[in-house]
Amino acid sequence: MNTPTDGPIAELLSIGSELLVGETVDTNAAYLGAALSRLGIPLRGTRHLPDDTGVIAAAFVEARGRSDLVVATGGLGPTHDDVTRDGLAAALGEELRPDAALEAQLRSRFAAYGKMPTSNLRQAMLIPSAEPLPNPLGSAPGWWVDRDGSVTVLLPGVPSEMRAMWTDAAAPRLPARFALRPVHTRTVKTFGIGESAISDLVDDLLTAPGEGVEAGIYARDDGVHLRFSTRGDPAVLDAPVARALALLGDHVYGTDDDDLASLALAALGRAGATAVATLESGTQGMLMAILSASQPVQPESGAARFVGGMLDAGGPVATPVADAVIQLSLHSPDAHGRSRVRVSVAGAISLPMVEVRVHGSGQQRLRRTAFAALDQVRRALF
Amino acid sequence: MNTPTDGPIAELLSIGSELLVGETVDTNAAYLGAALSRLGIPLRGTRHLPDDTGVIAAAFVEARGRSDLVVATGGLGPTHDDVTRDGLAAALGEELRPDAALEAQLRSRFAAYGKMPTSNLRQAMLIPSAEPLPNPLGSAPGWWVDRDGSVTVLLPGVPSEMRAMWTDAAAPRLPARFALRPVHTRTVKTFGIGESAISDLVDDLLTAPGEGVEAGIYARDDGVHLRFSTRGDPAVLDAPVARALALLGDHVYGTDDDDLASLALAALGRAGATAVATLESGTQGMLMAILSASQPVQPESGAARFVGGMLDAGGPVATPVADAVIQLSLHSPDAHGRSRVRVSVAGAISLPMVEVRVHGSGQQRLRRTAFAALDQVRRALF
Repeated sequence: MNTPTDGPIAELLSIGSELLVGETVDTNAAYLGAALSRLGIPLRGTRHLPDDTGVIAAAFVEARGRSDLVVATGGLGPTHDDVTRDGLAAALGEELRPDAALEAQLRSRFAAYGKMPTSNLRQAMLIPSAEPLPNPLGSAPGWWVDRDGSVTVLLPGVPSEMRAMWTDAAAPRLPARFALRPVHTRTVKTFGIGESAISDLVDDLLTAPGEGVEAGIYARDDGVHLRFSTRGDPAVLDAPVARALALLGDHVYGTDDDDLASLALAALGRAGATAVATLESGTQGMLMAILSASQPVQPESGAARFVGGMLDAGGPVATPVADAVIQLSLHSPDAHGRSRVRVSVAGAISLPMVEVRVHGSGQQRLRRTAFAALDQVRRALF
Repeated sequence: MNTPTDGPIAELLSIGSELLVGETVDTNAAYLGAALSRLGIPLRGTRHLPDDTGVIAAAFVEARGRSDLVVATGGLGPTHDDVTRDGLAAALGEELRPDAALEAQLRSRFAAYGKMPTSNLRQAMLIPSAEPLPNPLGSAPGWWVDRDGSVTVLLPGVPSEMRAMWTDAAAPRLPARFALRPVHTRTVKTFGIGESAISDLVDDLLTAPGEGVEAGIYARDDGVHLRFSTRGDPAVLDAPVARALALLGDHVYGTDDDDLASLALAALGRAGATAVATLESGTQGMLMAILSASQPVQPESGAARFVGGMLDAGGPVATPVADAVIQLSLHSPDAHGRSRVRVSVAGAISLPMVEVRVHGSGQQRLRRTAFAALDQVRRALF
């Protein structure tokens, strides 16, 4: 995928030594990458940096010199190694000073809990060119700095705080500051076919998806996804999506926001089930985890409702009240790293056992197994 | 945390436009950061790069110029936008050529599935200074390149393939190539106390944890963790760990590999329970997801076994056969973003209802709620 070079370009700095020693997975980068992409501000790149004022300052100088927008997450906490504020102040040659209004806000926030720890005073520091961004969920205010033609936004590293501040305080300022051309995206989702095979089947769609359209292919645990995007009229995406659907046939299970859990529950509902349970072996409860995390079913949709799941690792247990119980077992991998998966449905709604294979290891193997089960249920009841 | 500067330094390049548009969360960076940290090769930084040969080549030149080890993940697939091989070849001024042995291996791999897609031939290309690393789980071989005093390792982006190749083929080569001083780490884990409050309580332990010891503090969904590490004699960690335990008292639930799910199941087992189930409301099954993903209980340990969970979102359902049912409900957040959580245990083993509060939003709020429930069970039965 080529990055369009008209319009603003952003880059991301994820700050925290915990990222570099693998204590923390950087989910913020993916969240902000997706959000900026939708706004039409592509990311040039992302960097993970240690809690080192000099390294952070140098990264801000470099990023601000080439990018219109620099978003940094993390390092706004109260402890001695939270030095993002210090790094940006050094990069801009400005001095950190206590801000009376921020200090008052912090003290009032802590009044509900007791005395404010003195270390939190670090969070009331500001530089002259920074405007604070409110943090309704935590003690760390963000910063918005618009200087020398480049905007820098500092956000907390805690994902819930970062997302709330981005959505409520940072993102709403961008359309007034930059000329944005939002990106429109369509996704075609497949299961049971590999990335290479899809690439061969739809090759010209990937290399030449149409004027003003970009294409990408992504192998994920819930199958291989084709993604088409444009910064122009979203109608130009209709043709490549229709072509992909025609070329890929019944490998396709859905588009855009469709997901296998909802599709399987909808298929079971159409077949007459109202309450679905699971009984799984070898999967550490991954199927029930995915079904219970899927969006709550609207009663009027006719989809079946997931009511609970049992593990039979320790021997047979009573299955709960349900008119369809998805039974799933995952067996040991063979020499090629592929594992046998057996799926069936028992109860008022029943489906005979089918066997499929998944590859991979660890959590990914478990997730692929759960999605393979949902795909089999969906296919059998289509 | 300061990065020790003796010994080799590494950096990481995570390659793939899907990372920059937020299609994929980069879990590989955390895995490799932790693995390298344990080996005593600290990461200078991590970068996410788009699928652009020129950008990738420039990043390899820069990283190889300053770091002893450069590990790149992603971009080894068969499709037109998998250009990591091309980027490294350009950075080194070497030419990509088809390798007969690799091609034969690839064809034999595909013989089990049918015809090899022609696009996979890209994966049999090599440069003169690269040695291939076998990929037992996928079609993309890795590369090991040792030239000009810097080692570059290319690994696939699919996490299961990356981890297997790292563990079996790449990591074992490092001790022979670099003088390594592995890092020893101890962790003290707390729940129910904030990062600021801990920082105030143990401040000198964070700023001066002892000669040759580094300290860090990490706020996670399962509580705030204090981490002490050394490249020297692991016995130097005993003193700061003991001091942290003394200062933090009953906020501490465990150390190192202890986790709240296992501790709660062990506490229920000590109280006489053998089979534990859950009944949850408002948490999208997060408690059962965490319990079922926890390590399988050894029968001889005396810990109770998790047998399954029910959701009561759609009304009361039968609870499964269990002598302890953890009942958990999460209520709407208040104006400060804090949500009431009610926890009790019913059955042969029972505990009265307690109410706690969690803050946060989204998945994090649900995870914190589930961990708060496990912490309450553990505390009540301590």
